[in-house]
Amino acid sequence: MSHCAAIGLDLQRGRSPSVVGVENLDIAVLGTGPVGRAVAGRLAELGHAVTIGTRDPDGTAGREEYAAWAAAHPAVRLATFAAAAAGAALVVNASGGDVALGILDSAGAANLAGKVLLDISNPLDGSQGFPPTLFVKDDDSLAETIQRAHPDARVVKSLNTMNNALMVDPQRLGEDTTVFVSGDDADAKATVTDLLRQLGHGDVIDLGGIETARGPEMWLPLWIRINLALGGNDFNIKVVRGPSLRK
Amino acid sequence: MSHCAAIGLDLQRGRSPSVVGVENLDIAVLGTGPVGRAVAGRLAELGHAVTIGTRDPDGTAGREEYAAWAAAHPAVRLATFAAAAAGAALVVNASGGDVALGILDSAGAANLAGKVLLDISNPLDGSQGFPPTLFVKDDDSLAETIQRAHPDARVVKSLNTMNNALMVDPQRLGEDTTVFVSGDDADAKATVTDLLRQLGHGDVIDLGGIETARGPEMWLPLWIRINLALGGNDFNIKVVRGPSLRK
Repeated sequence: MSHCAAIGLDLQRGRSPSVVGVENLDIAVLGTGPVGRAVAGRLAELGHAVTIGTRDPDGTAGREEYAAWAAAHPAVRLATFAAAAAGAALVVNASGGDVALGILDSAGAANLAGKVLLDISNPLDGSQGFPPTLFVKDDDSLAETIQRAHPDARVVKSLNTMNNALMVDPQRLGEDTTVFVSGDDADAKATVTDLLRQLGHGDVIDLGGIETARGPEMWLPLWIRINLALGGNDFNIKVVRGPSLRK
Repeated sequence: MSHCAAIGLDLQRGRSPSVVGVENLDIAVLGTGPVGRAVAGRLAELGHAVTIGTRDPDGTAGREEYAAWAAAHPAVRLATFAAAAAGAALVVNASGGDVALGILDSAGAANLAGKVLLDISNPLDGSQGFPPTLFVKDDDSLAETIQRAHPDARVVKSLNTMNNALMVDPQRLGEDTTVFVSGDDADAKATVTDLLRQLGHGDVIDLGGIETARGPEMWLPLWIRINLALGGNDFNIKVVRGPSLRK
């Protein structure tokens, strides 16, 4: 994985140039749902080489909803979980939290070893109805579970704290809001932070090691109640600092 | 409990007059620690009749730290938990979450019946070291536990999501940030919301019934990690809405 200091142009979307740290990354996005498609589509627009991983590429390609999306995003390739991960420098787990471990097993430990593994999933348990509870919490987290299952991957937790439209376009809110990163590998967090800034995230808080992912994962129950109270998911939190905490 | 529409003047602190809904309330604050003192002191400055409840008033009055604070806040009285609650229209649980049920038992169910019971505590379990875990969560909350133990009290959860200095002076951050209310009694939530606005809270989100307190209580693990990452507790969150969610 390279850290090129370069200027990233995003003329297609008419945005102004911004300094970015990682460019033209080979990225695998595991998950074909709305979250995976939102992340894959935007990362491809930013110039990265994106492959979506799925269990059955032919089956996915034949699904009407996916086919319509793929037609509008011709640069994004489709492959098996394993093939997508094998060709990537950075792998995004955009699957549902309840199936994440199985999908990462399918991707293959060898294909994840040494890679940045950006985990944006949430440990939601909907089996008891709505609102969901968390199937891991408090003294453990899904991110730690994934790191333990794949000790050679460089797991970074981020982006799980907001709706997918805001993951890839937070500036739509009209002011900087906050996103968190947790992980044991400083270089992996730097790579993810570069990607976050390319996506428009103006306030990235590094919480520390992977165990700090317990915090952002346990935020979900409050996110869900705010979503219900406001009647929509187009919101994010901004951590407002007092004078003594401003940079 | 009365809902007087009135103009509340706060000349002592040099603030401009603001319209408030509840004035000159008899308030009991259960807890003599930093949280209880911050809330009691500010509510007294706002013109409310505040009594701090404690197990042993003579013992508390004799403690050097409390005595120094009391000398600077002569309007705040000190009484037993039961006497404080008996004389109050609104009771604030400002105790540690692990001792809250015992303290509310000492206050007495009859003294809490019909009262607004503002619960600002958190179910933190420090027995396994730092950072603390939560001793109730996910499919239950401390606020619900308190409501079940005192079914005739009108429990409202609020203010537990921030440091005590910000509970009583959120405007020190220089912009509106967000506070949440949860409770089953609409009038009780309206009273608490009035108090919150008197304290300077510009964005109050009503999450719904008391079970929604699971959200703000489960926020604490992220609050703790942000606190550690920023190196201080002088921060709060602002829920930033997209255009479709703005009032």
